[in-house]
Order: sequence, then structure tokens, then C-alpha cells
Amino acid sequence: MEILPLGVWLDLLGTFVFGISGALVAVRRGLDIFGIAVLSIAAGLAGGIIRDMILGATPPPAFEESRYLLTALAAGICVFFWHRVLERLNKPVMVLDALGLGVFAVSGCQKSLLFGLDPLPSILLGVLTAVGGGVARDLLVVEIPRVLRDEVYALAAMVGAVIVVAGAALDLSATWTAAIGVVAAFSIRVISVWRGWRAPRAPRS
Amino acid sequence: MEILPLGVWLDLLGTFVFGISGALVAVRRGLDIFGIAVLSIAAGLAGGIIRDMILGATPPPAFEESRYLLTALAAGICVFFWHRVLERLNKPVMVLDALGLGVFAVSGCQKSLLFGLDPLPSILLGVLTAVGGGVARDLLVVEIPRVLRDEVYALAAMVGAVIVVAGAALDLSATWTAAIGVVAAFSIRVISVWRGWRAPRAPRS
Amino acid sequence: MEILPLGVWLDLLGTFVFGISGALVAVRRGLDIFGIAVLSIAAGLAGGIIRDMILGATPPPAFEESRYLLTALAAGICVFFWHRVLERLNKPVMVLDALGLGVFAVSGCQKSLLFGLDPLPSILLGVLTAVGGGVARDLLVVEIPRVLRDEVYALAAMVGAVIVVAGAALDLSATWTAAIGVVAAFSIRVISVWRGWRAPRAPRS
Repeated sequence: MEILPLGVWLDLLGTFVFGISGALVAVRRGLDIFGIAVLSIAAGLAGGIIRDMILGATPPPAFEESRYLLTALAAGICVFFWHRVLERLNKPVMVLDALGLGVFAVSGCQKSLLFGLDPLPSILLGVLTAVGGGVARDLLVVEIPRVLRDEVYALAAMVGAVIVVAGAALDLSATWTAAIGVVAAFSIRVISVWRGWRAPRAPRS
Repeated sequence: MEILPLGVWLDLLGTFVFGISGALVAVRRGLDIFGIAVLSIAAGLAGGIIRDMILGATPPPAFEESRYLLTALAAGICVFFWHRVLERLNKPVMVLDALGLGVFAVSGCQKSLLFGLDPLPSILLGVLTAVGGGVARDLLVVEIPRVLRDEVYALAAMVGAVIVVAGAALDLSATWTAAIGVVAAFSIRVISVWRGWRAPRAPRS
Repeated sequence: MEILPLGVWLDLLGTFVFGISGALVAVRRGLDIFGIAVLSIAAGLAGGIIRDMILGATPPPAFEESRYLLTALAAGICVFFWHRVLERLNKPVMVLDALGLGVFAVSGCQKSLLFGLDPLPSILLGVLTAVGGGVARDLLVVEIPRVLRDEVYALAAMVGAVIVVAGAALDLSATWTAAIGVVAAFSIRVISVWRGWRAPRAPRS
């Protein structure tokens, strides 16, 4: 069996959990099975595709190989059959979204560094990879994207990406750095929702 | 006179009919002549541009040559002057949209195979080419895209793309395969609206 | 100190003023500091990134170098601290938006010509560069983009781009052509709002 590199595993995991979150949004909106497939694919693949198009890594792996697409569709099929179980779990879209956020922030930032981008743009592209799927999902059902509605969303992705950049600068193990980045981004996001953390607003007159 | 390959004719036809659909949406929204031009161009060109950006075929033909742009603008001009005639036809946006859907599904899938993509991603990119223009048109006027609202929309595009992939696998004539794919996608879409076909929904509790 | 070419200065100026307009929209919507950063970056960078992705100039300069990102963030920070001063100015979002519109129309058209595009597609890509940031900003807060709502918006950008194409065809100085293009697009936009110019609509029955 082919040994997949870490980045591919991260991408597939992120694709699956974002795919679930997209499909759950589709079910809540009462969309049919094709609407579920569209939102699974959009939420699962959009972040990585945007990253690859910006890096000039075309065609993106999500199109060159079937495994990403099958992963997103598998997420949609799981939701189609078991969405009542999934929704009984507490805030499942939020938690899966947080996991996808961390995974894609790390994988997007790692790939950007690999393509020779500077640290700061690598962080931005990590964040964009992380929020891209959710933005596509929310715009398709004409909602203000979560990245703008929710507190401490872009920040969580940013922390994950900063950890990757710091790890690369300090020459640490990419695997450990990735794991710490994902855990950090996920934890910050989940805890911030749980504790109701709020980011500062511009002072009103 | 230059002999254009089949793919170019399909793209130009799809650009024109989607351009008409975009312009009709603009007229219904009471937009001015520039809004009509923007929606003609967005609806007519977005699908192909997204396809070419994903394939790395940049700059996309829609930008390298003037003919695509002129085609979309011609669609906008036709609507500006004759929109009352066009709207008196029954459900004209739906029918033109269905034709554009079939044409772009086929051309998008053919071009993806040409660029060496696997069959499954080629089908996805065909569907994305087909729905991209309509998504751009609907998002610009802040409506939920038709691909999510309407039954059997993505499915129709998918059937067209599957026929192209099957034809290529069986080594059939590309021209005939394309024609059958367009007719199949168009027919499924139009008949599904006419007969009120519905796709299955996830069972509610 | 490094001497930056004209195109880079135009891009940085456009990034800053569109960044301000994005951040002001975020403050009006009551978004937190990360929402402000997201809208500054989206409004400031989206037009140029779309242009570069279409031209195949990847990774776009906005990602390869940190200066674009820092410029957009600086715009967000300015708004965070001084938005009350900025809003007391008359119609500040509109005026800054008009300046960004002119600057990006010119820089987008110049870069397209440099990449060997035909005059007509170069004008379109100039307009797309000019309106892209505003479209991203407005879609993210789920508003119909200004390019569709406001009169004479795409037209103003188009005039700026046409002046660039005409100047290149007549072999005039790129610097002077750029300056005239920016001033023309900006003036047409501002005067059209001030005087309430309206573009023709399709005749209703």
C-alpha cells in the first residue's frame, strides 16, 4: 500500500470533517441529495483548491486524484443516512468545523512554505485554506460566513499557522509541529465558543 | 475562415445562452445597462474561467481572445433590446440555463480529460464548469444558487459529463459523444422541471 | 532603498484605500477586530489576486511578498482606531472606493497588456481587478455588490482601462497614461454619485 505523506492525510481529514459540516448545513436547509453533495464538496474541497490555485499548483490534487472527491462524497453519504445521530451530538457542526479549521490551517501553511512563500503570506494562505471551505459553504446558502459572524475564528486558524511557521524557523519536526498546530487551533476555537470569548470591537462613538 | 474546434463552438454557445440568462436576471432586478453587462459576462464566462484556472490553462481563452467576451456582451445587448419578446417565451431563463448547463458540462469534462485528469475528477470539473456561471450570476444578486434550490440540476450536468467520460473510455467519436451528452443533460433538466421530478431528501426525524 | 516600479505603487495604494473601505464596512456591521482584518484583506487584495490567478502569475505578488498584506492590515488598524474621524468625512467609503477603482483598473489593465492579452480582454481584466475587491467585501457581508447596485461604477473603471489601452496603442508614456486613467476613472465615479448620473435601463413593458 502506498504510504501517503502527512500533508495528504491532513488534507483528507480536513476534507472529511468539512464535508460533514457542509452536508449538515444542507440537511438543515432541507436540500435534496444533490444539494448535500454540492455542499459536502464545496465545504470539503474549496479551501484546498483556493490554496493550490493561488500557489499555482494546478491542477490541484483535489482534481488530479479521485481520493479527495470520494472523501467529500463519503462525508455527504454519512450525513444523508446518519444525520439524526450526528445532530444529537452537541454542536457537531461547530466541533467538526473547528477540527477542519485546524487541519487546513496547518496543511495550507506547510504547503505555502514548501512553495517558498515568506512566513507572513504563508500564515495568510494557511488561514485562507482554513476558512475557504466554510466561506464557500455559507455563501452558497447566502449566509454571512462564520469567519465574520463568530468570535475568535480567524484567530484560531492563525495560531495554528503561526505554530507551523515558528516550527519551520526553529527546524523542529514537521509532524510534531503539525500536530501541535492542529491541536492549538482546534482547542482555541472550541474553548472560545464554550467560554464565550469575545474579540475587541472598534469603539463606537 | 478559421475552422474552430468543437470545444470552442460549445464554449461560445454556452457563453451566449448563459449570457442571456444572466442579462434576463439583471433586467428583472431593474439593473442598468452596466449591471446587465456585468451579469451577462459573469454568467457567460465564469464557468469556463473557473475550469481553466483549476486546470492551470492560464490565461483562460475567455481572456486571451476577444470572441468570448464579445459573445457574452452580444447576449446582454440582445436582452437589453428584446427582453420583452424573450420573456414572453415560456420559462426562457430555465430553458437557456438548461442548454448552457449541458454544453458546459460536456466541454468542461472534455477539456479535463484532455489535460489528463482522472475520469471522476473530470466529471466533477465538468459539473463545476456547468454550474459555475449560474452560481456567479445568482450570488451577485444575493440569491441561493439554482444548483441548490432546484431539483435535479447538478444531476443533469453530471449525466452529460458521465456520457463524455464513457464515450472517451469506449473510444467513440468525440463529436457524437458531445452531442449526446448535451442533449441528455438538457433533456433531463427540462423534463425534470416540467414533470416536477424531485430528488430524495435526508429523512427527517 | 529599493525603487519600486509604478505598478507596485499603484497596487499598494489601491490595496490601502480598498482596505480602508473594507474595514469601514466591518465597523458599521459591528464586527470584531478579526472581522475588520478579514474585510480589509479581502477588499484590499481580492482584485489583484483574481487578476494574477487569471493571468497565471502565481503565486500572486500579494502572497509572495509581505508588503501587500501589511498594507491591507495597516488600513484595518487605521480604521480600528480612527474610524470615527474617517466616518465624519463625507461619504468616505464611496470616495476611497472610487480611488481604489481607478487605481486597480489601470494597474490591472497594464499588467494584462504586459502578459500579452488583447486590448478588449485587457480592459475586462482591468475592470475585474477594479471591482473584485469590492465584490468580495460586499459578498462577505451578504450585500448585493456595489458594481450592481450603483450607477456608472463599472463604466468608470472601464474608462480608466480604455485610457491605458489607448495610451499603449499610441505608445505614450506609461506613467502619464496611468495618472490620466486613474484621475479619469476616479472623477467619473465621484461626479456620477455627486450629480446622480444614471445609466439607461432596459425599457419596461
